[in-house]
Amino acid sequence: MSGQLVLHEYAESGNCYKVRLTAALLGIPLERREYDILKGETRTPEFLREVNANGRIPVLQDGDRFIPESNAACYYIADASRLVPSDRFDHADMLRWMFWEQYNHEPNIATLRFWMTLVGVDSLSEAQRLQLTPKREAGNAALKLMDDHLAGRDWFVGEDISLADVCLFAYTHVAGDADFRLNAYPHVVEWIERVGKQPDFIPLDA
Amino acid sequence: MSGQLVLHEYAESGNCYKVRLTAALLGIPLERREYDILKGETRTPEFLREVNANGRIPVLQDGDRFIPESNAACYYIADASRLVPSDRFDHADMLRWMFWEQYNHEPNIATLRFWMTLVGVDSLSEAQRLQLTPKREAGNAALKLMDDHLAGRDWFVGEDISLADVCLFAYTHVAGDADFRLNAYPHVVEWIERVGKQPDFIPLDA
Repeated sequence: MSGQLVLHEYAESGNCYKVRLTAALLGIPLERREYDILKGETRTPEFLREVNANGRIPVLQDGDRFIPESNAACYYIADASRLVPSDRFDHADMLRWMFWEQYNHEPNIATLRFWMTLVGVDSLSEAQRLQLTPKREAGNAALKLMDDHLAGRDWFVGEDISLADVCLFAYTHVAGDADFRLNAYPHVVEWIERVGKQPDFIPLDA
Repeated sequence: MSGQLVLHEYAESGNCYKVRLTAALLGIPLERREYDILKGETRTPEFLREVNANGRIPVLQDGDRFIPESNAACYYIADASRLVPSDRFDHADMLRWMFWEQYNHEPNIATLRFWMTLVGVDSLSEAQRLQLTPKREAGNAALKLMDDHLAGRDWFVGEDISLADVCLFAYTHVAGDADFRLNAYPHVVEWIERVGKQPDFIPLDA
């Protein structure tokens, strides 16, 4: 990495928290720049031109280069660190959970959290309202899959914490904000406690 | 890698094609095992227990170990090859496009293709029908972002083809199946031709 890292973010987003947590666990300082996504501050012509043409946060900046997509930003920070397994299978297995998080977990659990805590259910479109039940079911299926996987193991991949845990932790530990009942997933609850006890752990609202 | 790789797949899926194309470009043989997803063959107790608890294909098998998630399977095959940049920024940038593909591209373009060509629009639920327009708009926004990015450059990352191109190619080149008008994205059309001219390229129906 070439210099001071800057995180373009919206602090309450779990996707942004992932990047902060990765940096904290590795002792790497991050400068934070806040945007209000509810006011459209990541859709301005300037943001689209200079930070991310996709109009989304988080974006990690290193010098004059930008990395959108939360899990890619985490990888950039953690490349060659203890959070990225060197074994070929474990490395691919870590990526497997990170891709799964973006496809099966985030669009259900994070989206419901966003709709219920920030947008408000009354403000949803009809198309969104009809997705409440499918997303609830898919979110619970995701938590069930995690719970089954964690039965008898401490971490998602291999014998130690990796980016798979960091990236899955971000929205899982606040799933209660979207009325998911985490107590139904005891292995997940234990794993959340385990992550929270890591040296240099920081909470979402730090 | 430890031995003969086996791809558990549904051949018409672009996510499965990605894995075959990665292997073909690198000259790595794959044994193929076909499942009919329309008949629920990836949701049987045996499949869920032995291949993928998430009930989805593709899954790459190496010996007695399994890697679900198409982009993770591609990475496992291509690890340390010419399709994975060694530069730290380019590597993270490649992952950025691969995560973007799974979050912004596949759920729109691939899902519409699946609904229109295999499920049939008349068989969609009301919740799905109300997503036709949002997914069409998001799919076109994804193609526009790709087109803008490819203006003045041959490949998504750096100076050569990488897994970012392979993974984005899979559903982009058949977006017409879901009535996306690719001619509106001339840089994408040229890039599709460029990928198709790679030595050892194989088409989706090979």
